[in-house]
Amino acid sequence: MQTVVPFDAVSPKTRLGPVLAAHERARFARAMLADVLAAVVATGREPTVLSTSPISFEGELEAASPNTTIRVDDRPLTEAIDAVLEREGGPVAVVMADLALATPGALEALFSADGDVVLAPGRGGGTNALVVRDDSFRVDFHGASYLDHRRIADDVGASLETVDSFRLGTDVDEPADLVEVLVHGTGRSVDCLRSLGFELERTGGRVDVTRLEESTRGGRE
Amino acid sequence: MQTVVPFDAVSPKTRLGPVLAAHERARFARAMLADVLAAVVATGREPTVLSTSPISFEGELEAASPNTTIRVDDRPLTEAIDAVLEREGGPVAVVMADLALATPGALEALFSADGDVVLAPGRGGGTNALVVRDDSFRVDFHGASYLDHRRIADDVGASLETVDSFRLGTDVDEPADLVEVLVHGTGRSVDCLRSLGFELERTGGRVDVTRLEESTRGGRE
Repeated sequence: MQTVVPFDAVSPKTRLGPVLAAHERARFARAMLADVLAAVVATGREPTVLSTSPISFEGELEAASPNTTIRVDDRPLTEAIDAVLEREGGPVAVVMADLALATPGALEALFSADGDVVLAPGRGGGTNALVVRDDSFRVDFHGASYLDHRRIADDVGASLETVDSFRLGTDVDEPADLVEVLVHGTGRSVDCLRSLGFELERTGGRVDVTRLEESTRGGRE
Repeated sequence: MQTVVPFDAVSPKTRLGPVLAAHERARFARAMLADVLAAVVATGREPTVLSTSPISFEGELEAASPNTTIRVDDRPLTEAIDAVLEREGGPVAVVMADLALATPGALEALFSADGDVVLAPGRGGGTNALVVRDDSFRVDFHGASYLDHRRIADDVGASLETVDSFRLGTDVDEPADLVEVLVHGTGRSVDCLRSLGFELERTGGRVDVTRLEESTRGGRE
């Protein structure tokens, strides 16, 4: 099964702007991509990165997934994924590049679930990963994509399943999402955040993230 | 296995104050409790509600779970649950009352997972449900309870497992969480929200909730 990981190489993770500078967001986005690719590889698949612009695929990316195919498509996500679906014929899996908590087990549950269309919902009505086995299904990532994908599957007569996964349901978009990486992450993404000075702030109530000044980080970077 | 559902009957869901009046929060909290109890019952278990004050167990609650035991304990959550663990001996499951998306399948995955301690993580480092099969384990729901429960299990030499569930990971605390109920809910909780005028607002970008003025609701309440 073709496994596609869409990646915004131009301006990744802009909503993390309040806590990360642009070059830090780029680094963190690559760390999350590496974690996702490594998890895909651990399920026995060779991922294709669908990038909005050419990327340097070396270092942690190459280490995570040596046989990755890079394909560049600068169109919006929906159009780029639909082009893959039209071109491929046969099952296609799509896994977002910011699923920093993805594990091989969670992905295998997605890949092996029955259904012409299998959705892994994200928070806020999103779709964080999906498998498409129906040639007439097309995606729609604008707005409440989970509801739209259900409707589209229904429209084309495709059977639909969902996978119930906290790990696949956690896409990392906003500063509050960094808590999830620090609590549950085990790979390059959490290492990256720690090296950038992030740690959990546990004040007795809710858990938050805090960022240490560079001078106090003790040379961890 | 004793299955305990702690319920704050005194001032439930205060963080929903910006969008729901106190009597509406009480009604919504009971609807969520009914959904959780129904899901527990569907796994073949008879739940115990551990309530902070006496509650009227009629209407949708009785319909959802006719054989529920009500036990009143006005102590804070940690102390009340620890008292159950001390008293019971043998496996105890704890399921929070605001898991409006809980399904029998998701709960069964929790109940049947191996491990002296089994945790269902919630967002923000929380613990939304757990199973305790080790007599020396005690809970700590202050702050980052997921990390604390891991540590406590380690301290007492209990094996620990986690269940990976978006549904169990979604506790409904804040206005933004209502989106999840409207998107994924199928029971009394979503019916309650709709009758209170809530619906999804789909503006093309992120999904949000909106609340209709009572005069425009068309008698749905």
